[in-house]
Amino acid sequence: MPFYKEMEREDYLAAAEEWEGLIEAHRYADFRVQVSRYHMADIIEIFSFISDAYESRAFRLLTKEQAAEVFLSFDSERMERIISIVSDTELARMLDEMYMDDTVDIIEEMPAYIVKRILRNSTEEDRVALGKLLRYPQDSAGSIMTTEYLRFTGEQTVADALAYIRRVAIDKETIYTSYVTDKERHLLGIVTAKKLLISPTDTLLSEIMETHVISATTSEDREAVAMKFDKYGFLALPVVDAENRLVGIVTVDDAMEVLREEVEEDIAKMAGMSPSETPYLKTKVFTLFFSRVPWLLLLMISATFSSTILGIFESALPAVLVLFVPMLMDTGGNSGGQASVTLIRGLSLGEVSGRDVGKVVFKEARVGFLCGLAVAIVAFGKVMLVDHLLMQNPEVTVQVALAVAVSMLLTVLLAKLIGCLLPIGALRLGFDPAVMASPFITTIVDALALLMYFVISKNILAL
Amino acid sequence: MPFYKEMEREDYLAAAEEWEGLIEAHRYADFRVQVSRYHMADIIEIFSFISDAYESRAFRLLTKEQAAEVFLSFDSERMERIISIVSDTELARMLDEMYMDDTVDIIEEMPAYIVKRILRNSTEEDRVALGKLLRYPQDSAGSIMTTEYLRFTGEQTVADALAYIRRVAIDKETIYTSYVTDKERHLLGIVTAKKLLISPTDTLLSEIMETHVISATTSEDREAVAMKFDKYGFLALPVVDAENRLVGIVTVDDAMEVLREEVEEDIAKMAGMSPSETPYLKTKVFTLFFSRVPWLLLLMISATFSSTILGIFESALPAVLVLFVPMLMDTGGNSGGQASVTLIRGLSLGEVSGRDVGKVVFKEARVGFLCGLAVAIVAFGKVMLVDHLLMQNPEVTVQVALAVAVSMLLTVLLAKLIGCLLPIGALRLGFDPAVMASPFITTIVDALALLMYFVISKNILAL
Repeated sequence: MPFYKEMEREDYLAAAEEWEGLIEAHRYADFRVQVSRYHMADIIEIFSFISDAYESRAFRLLTKEQAAEVFLSFDSERMERIISIVSDTELARMLDEMYMDDTVDIIEEMPAYIVKRILRNSTEEDRVALGKLLRYPQDSAGSIMTTEYLRFTGEQTVADALAYIRRVAIDKETIYTSYVTDKERHLLGIVTAKKLLISPTDTLLSEIMETHVISATTSEDREAVAMKFDKYGFLALPVVDAENRLVGIVTVDDAMEVLREEVEEDIAKMAGMSPSETPYLKTKVFTLFFSRVPWLLLLMISATFSSTILGIFESALPAVLVLFVPMLMDTGGNSGGQASVTLIRGLSLGEVSGRDVGKVVFKEARVGFLCGLAVAIVAFGKVMLVDHLLMQNPEVTVQVALAVAVSMLLTVLLAKLIGCLLPIGALRLGFDPAVMASPFITTIVDALALLMYFVISKNILAL
Repeated sequence: MPFYKEMEREDYLAAAEEWEGLIEAHRYADFRVQVSRYHMADIIEIFSFISDAYESRAFRLLTKEQAAEVFLSFDSERMERIISIVSDTELARMLDEMYMDDTVDIIEEMPAYIVKRILRNSTEEDRVALGKLLRYPQDSAGSIMTTEYLRFTGEQTVADALAYIRRVAIDKETIYTSYVTDKERHLLGIVTAKKLLISPTDTLLSEIMETHVISATTSEDREAVAMKFDKYGFLALPVVDAENRLVGIVTVDDAMEVLREEVEEDIAKMAGMSPSETPYLKTKVFTLFFSRVPWLLLLMISATFSSTILGIFESALPAVLVLFVPMLMDTGGNSGGQASVTLIRGLSLGEVSGRDVGKVVFKEARVGFLCGLAVAIVAFGKVMLVDHLLMQNPEVTVQVALAVAVSMLLTVLLAKLIGCLLPIGALRLGFDPAVMASPFITTIVDALALLMYFVISKNILAL
């Protein structure tokens, strides 16, 4: 019974070792048979475990379809290495297998001499198309679209469309959506393969096309485009120029990729790091270092404010107050972090917009007051029961407990407000809200919390 | 020229108002025409802005296709309200429009009396299928699959398949992948619609089917299933029982939904909150309060350790040391947060596994040392230049600056190690690594950082 088992990491390692053995033994035919037994996605994984010594020989034994897919999975370093060893014929065959959007991705990452070789080995037609695609800005819909799609006019019939699909399907990235345009390529509607399959063959496409077409423009931000897939449940989205002329399509796999990259970027920024696209274990130590250290330094220097405030009040107030500084700082940071992360995700997902600032502040004020009250009551109880009664610390008086509790309440409330206002403010000023997450908020809230704490204590203890 | 413009929030509000006006004026035919002008996804959005007073009337004017889709977008409260006002006939028609997996989702959220009404108004066949689907655990592949898919035997031809698809396509969630099984429903292979369209009509399906089939089992975790879509680029994935018999399929839209939910859950937990599925502006204040306050309290109480350590050393050491506590605590928390968030994402995306602990620790140790060194040098410079030379604080000596710098180095290193070990440890113990993010790590690192700081200072200042 043919049943393909999903592979785990050890299976990949074992397969890579087996393949290397076959190459070592010059059993090239067996190697090819072996490779053909695996799912394409698994061939890609196995290749990532093939050591550098066997890499080029293994690669050149692949079919052109396999070679194209495996090549696309490589990082730019490995791509460069491979391009430098394959012949012009091999390169041309591989490029022919790829969709335009993938070739564009490669070209954008390769050094000039390799780009020249790629262009030289592309067909004239592809070269023109690539030239156009490469002119779109890097984060635009134009840069992730492909130009291989199915286009018909409304006067063609279902039979015409099916016959054409039968002939060209192999070269198109998706055949599940066809686009209907006029002679000048103005987009008029879309027809799904489902519709083609269930409609009588003599129906005109103009009769069955869906005219509620959502499209993107070439210059539109790729994240905004990806969000449309999510909202409308598309498998593909047409991309038009300023005159509504169809120039390409974006497919769902590329949209998913964009969404994943964007969410990982957000998460990295929220944790005070520069985003990286490489998987953790493959990221170099220095890359990790440089993605983290600027933030650490920036935040450390900002924390100086808190030190300054401590320095001003420390000598003037009872030393016992310092004991509760860590509790206050941590709680303030956590409260602010909760609010800011909630807001940042809401903004990213389009659930909250910059204009909702009034509603957001009102909501966070109420949540902040409730959280603050709960925290204050528990803090008061903890200080009285543990420090005052249990530990019998003579300096911890009811006044001290009260000062801690009131400071807690106000800190949590303030942290929630800062935590929601900063991300919205960043968005309005055109910055990325994701930077305004826990680490940054913590620094600000810390300083303000300390200031409030000492002022409140001074007043309460003077009573 | 028919060109459908994507709608913004104000457009939704304006449309909702217009629709309410048509209902108010009893212009029901106009209402229907108006609704039909919009894309389904936009109808859903507009409905979310229709006020409660018009909700039931607006809903009952929809076609059964529209009603089904709009209904599925409602929260459980609104669903309950709608079910209680529609007639049995309307309910049955709506249920007939829905795919099994959606009906299962509804049933899982509704109170028993409504579930009974739903089952009573389903066809006998659907009732049996629903009964089976409802028995799968909530987070399993079985719970998100649908039973409406295309199944053929290998002896059928392309023509047979196309003829069958033409007849039944309307009821199937996807027609882009067909499944080939034997008489006992054992899964043998898959055939894409693309393959059907480009193959000669008399070809047997067994000749063109892809036998490298990745499938899921009914009890498999839904997140693991969703990850397969990402890895293999599927539009649909077959779900089989323990005997490899096909029982359903999961489609790409459901997989995307699962992935999105899981990533938002991770983010919420990383920020010390319980995850919520409701959009921010629609979440009640008390819901937000209860999702946040337990964590705040837990973390506040944990911060008591830091206070205790401060209490022990505070009186025995020069007061000036306290000045640098905020800087040390913040930097420790940020360093640990960076490492933990990187690891948590790596684990979630399957880039890192529990067995990589050695590699991870080695990498973080090096990154931590480099970051720590950079931070220590800057901290030393800052303390010497600003506090010692510029502010002329007599208590800030070279020894103090050195104590701060050494503590910084060790704190950052330690924070990185704790930040990577805790998520991996949590995974190994069967907990969710996402909880081991910044807030939790901060609390632990704070206490340890203070302890190291005071011990180091004591030794350096005694020199």
